[in-house]
Amino acid sequence: MVGNKFQLEDVIEAQQFDRETLNAIFEVAREMELVEKNTPGSQLLKGYLMATLFYEPSTRTRLSFESAMKRLGGEVLTTENAREFSSAAKGETLEDTIRTVEGYSDIIVMRHFESGAARRAATTASIPIINAGDGPGQHPTQALLDAYTIEREIGKLDGIKVGLVGDLAYGRTVRSLAHLLAKYHDVKIYFVSPDVVRMKNDIKDYLTSMGIEWEESADLMDVASKCDVIYQTRIQRERFGERIDLYEEARGKYIVNQDVFNVLQKHAVVMHPLPRLDEITVDVDKDPRAAYFRQAKNGLYIRMALLKLLLLGW
Amino acid sequence: MVGNKFQLEDVIEAQQFDRETLNAIFEVAREMELVEKNTPGSQLLKGYLMATLFYEPSTRTRLSFESAMKRLGGEVLTTENAREFSSAAKGETLEDTIRTVEGYSDIIVMRHFESGAARRAATTASIPIINAGDGPGQHPTQALLDAYTIEREIGKLDGIKVGLVGDLAYGRTVRSLAHLLAKYHDVKIYFVSPDVVRMKNDIKDYLTSMGIEWEESADLMDVASKCDVIYQTRIQRERFGERIDLYEEARGKYIVNQDVFNVLQKHAVVMHPLPRLDEITVDVDKDPRAAYFRQAKNGLYIRMALLKLLLLGW
Amino acid sequence: MVGNKFQLEDVIEAQQFDRETLNAIFEVAREMELVEKNTPGSQLLKGYLMATLFYEPSTRTRLSFESAMKRLGGEVLTTENAREFSSAAKGETLEDTIRTVEGYSDIIVMRHFESGAARRAATTASIPIINAGDGPGQHPTQALLDAYTIEREIGKLDGIKVGLVGDLAYGRTVRSLAHLLAKYHDVKIYFVSPDVVRMKNDIKDYLTSMGIEWEESADLMDVASKCDVIYQTRIQRERFGERIDLYEEARGKYIVNQDVFNVLQKHAVVMHPLPRLDEITVDVDKDPRAAYFRQAKNGLYIRMALLKLLLLGW
Repeated sequence: MVGNKFQLEDVIEAQQFDRETLNAIFEVAREMELVEKNTPGSQLLKGYLMATLFYEPSTRTRLSFESAMKRLGGEVLTTENAREFSSAAKGETLEDTIRTVEGYSDIIVMRHFESGAARRAATTASIPIINAGDGPGQHPTQALLDAYTIEREIGKLDGIKVGLVGDLAYGRTVRSLAHLLAKYHDVKIYFVSPDVVRMKNDIKDYLTSMGIEWEESADLMDVASKCDVIYQTRIQRERFGERIDLYEEARGKYIVNQDVFNVLQKHAVVMHPLPRLDEITVDVDKDPRAAYFRQAKNGLYIRMALLKLLLLGW
Repeated sequence: MVGNKFQLEDVIEAQQFDRETLNAIFEVAREMELVEKNTPGSQLLKGYLMATLFYEPSTRTRLSFESAMKRLGGEVLTTENAREFSSAAKGETLEDTIRTVEGYSDIIVMRHFESGAARRAATTASIPIINAGDGPGQHPTQALLDAYTIEREIGKLDGIKVGLVGDLAYGRTVRSLAHLLAKYHDVKIYFVSPDVVRMKNDIKDYLTSMGIEWEESADLMDVASKCDVIYQTRIQRERFGERIDLYEEARGKYIVNQDVFNVLQKHAVVMHPLPRLDEITVDVDKDPRAAYFRQAKNGLYIRMALLKLLLLGW
Repeated sequence: MVGNKFQLEDVIEAQQFDRETLNAIFEVAREMELVEKNTPGSQLLKGYLMATLFYEPSTRTRLSFESAMKRLGGEVLTTENAREFSSAAKGETLEDTIRTVEGYSDIIVMRHFESGAARRAATTASIPIINAGDGPGQHPTQALLDAYTIEREIGKLDGIKVGLVGDLAYGRTVRSLAHLLAKYHDVKIYFVSPDVVRMKNDIKDYLTSMGIEWEESADLMDVASKCDVIYQTRIQRERFGERIDLYEEARGKYIVNQDVFNVLQKHAVVMHPLPRLDEITVDVDKDPRAAYFRQAKNGLYIRMALLKLLLLGW
């Protein structure tokens, strides 16, 4: 990287990254995989303070960020339930909260229940903001770790075939990942989902406009045999309201099990943003092509990379 | 400072500080403003452990203390909801809890829902206790940061004119601040509040006994034009019970807006303990005389100073 | 200790320790009592990360572990309410959660509401697991600190007389302690409890099979005059359901007060796992034979020892 070319100020949405920046982030993430206890790298962020301002609980994401900060020698201020932090409880605006918390810390990792909250925070703050999910909106660090995992597992992002499976209508992760994949060449995407949770037109139109080939399929076995990556997602019960019948029907429709692994190519992998219920059966966990726990671990490296880049620059 | 003259053992209430101690604390707070990452100052409290024992949540105050400790290289044990800590849940006394927690830490920052709890804790503990608010009682570090902010912004505390506005009956902060201001000379205090939340007689009598001039006024514009400091507070809805009508009436009565700023003297400032609702309009935030976010930041320096003084002495 | 003879991999239940291992752990705990701020010992676990995965709150136990880790220079990731951590909330299995969290940390301290959960976690994890209590099952670090306290206070475990008092049916601590005491010679145990919460036959049979003498007694004064250790426990109201009358009767039956201390031998001590209600009266706290707060503090040293042994070996 040359100089400050990619000065990263905030991480707000998957779309903000161009291909060059993505590659640069992935390069730093690779370095982060090599950071060991009691080496200079493990003290990179010594003296820096990260505040995790979580307006809704997400222990997994919070721990991943806090681990990333501490693996680099930084310190953490935790708010697991920031709704009590005046905002909801006493009526303070998000902007006022941010202006207070930025006085106590060097970077804020925020999760919020409202789409657009992270952008509002970034507009107000004079320190970097990382969006750790804002409602139905964005979860950009998940998209980055997904793309990073594909590159680590398959060796490239150009020319890959990806099957997105499960809840494509509401699943924030598959929508964000589609955005990132569109930055690469010759990508082919297959959508495999129950009818009630099909991929929406905005993403389809976007992919088409970016020259990305996509098709819908009802045949998971066929897709599995052709793809480099099968990205399975959980059908979220809370999206179905009182229609439990529709949920139950959707939920059991596309399961990744040993049969699917049997048709999978040797170099291919199965990914999942976790947590999973039974949409991937546990008997395939020991197959080396089951990449989902490695994927979770990659979240640590991506977050280490982002913290380093936002606080110290390139 | 000469030797251990001001040996500070606990921080329990605003009244415990004489003028000389206040000045000494403010001097240390000024030094704390200069502590930078990776300088020796940032390691002053290395190896020390602070426990935040919060029986009611107060994220803002907790984060401020935890940031202060970590900025000085210390470590933190957090209990965001100490009511579960046996006391309420299993019937353990506060004294037993303190005797257990003092075995794990070097200093305890405690917030409690009962007036007098901090003093009871200090009587039991062999390590320093800081009162981070005990019910309707005291919140001494807020009073200290308020007085420190006046000194930083106006340059002195003697001879100042202060307008206390809003909820003067229940507002813990204005009551404590009045106590501290009484230690200085030639102070003049104006009380501006809706009838239902007027300043109570105990404070008025105390000020009179200390030779502090005060008057009540219903004319915020007049007071604003005369004062060095306008200290606005939030009308707390929870104080009005079912009388929402009284709350609504009280709430809208004295708003600090552009009109108030227009009559404010050039050197004057507006303060607020935060969080605010609409008692200060956001359009004045960018005016340099809006001091409330600087005030919040001063809380960090005051708490750093207290932690240093309680753990290392002068 | 010779080489890696006692390679400790996980801490799951009191029964896993033989006498030799117990002695070795107690030896390390003694060293831990001497660790001072800013000495090399205080940096033993620098760079190591401990995750506290608590599926039910236990502030006391959590703080003790977190203090232990930080006193040795390690860092902590905290989850005070891990039930929200997908498992309960979204249906993730404990195994999946463990496989994610082990990616973020070097050791996991887990408290769970289900008996056997810690063993399941240890089977899954490739990093050490410490059981900090799993439902009605085990709480091995409490048993270790209890035995360590007896050795520290009385000077030995062989040949001692111990009175276990209070809730012997449901009290996890007395059951685990009985298991540990059975590893020593010439131990005599007296059970003193209300009828409704008498010691169960499994423990009695186990003690008999191990050659440990025991008897039941209804005379606390007589037992107190004969024993080296009186181990008092709290009668847990939640065990009695709607039979508040039985609870009230059981609760007041055996109180350790000044009368009991009057018949206690000079070298004897009173212990309690805390929290206490009124089963030990506060007026005896100042008697040097009241060992319960020293016992709580010993929990810190035992946990420091275990963390050191699990992460660095002998």
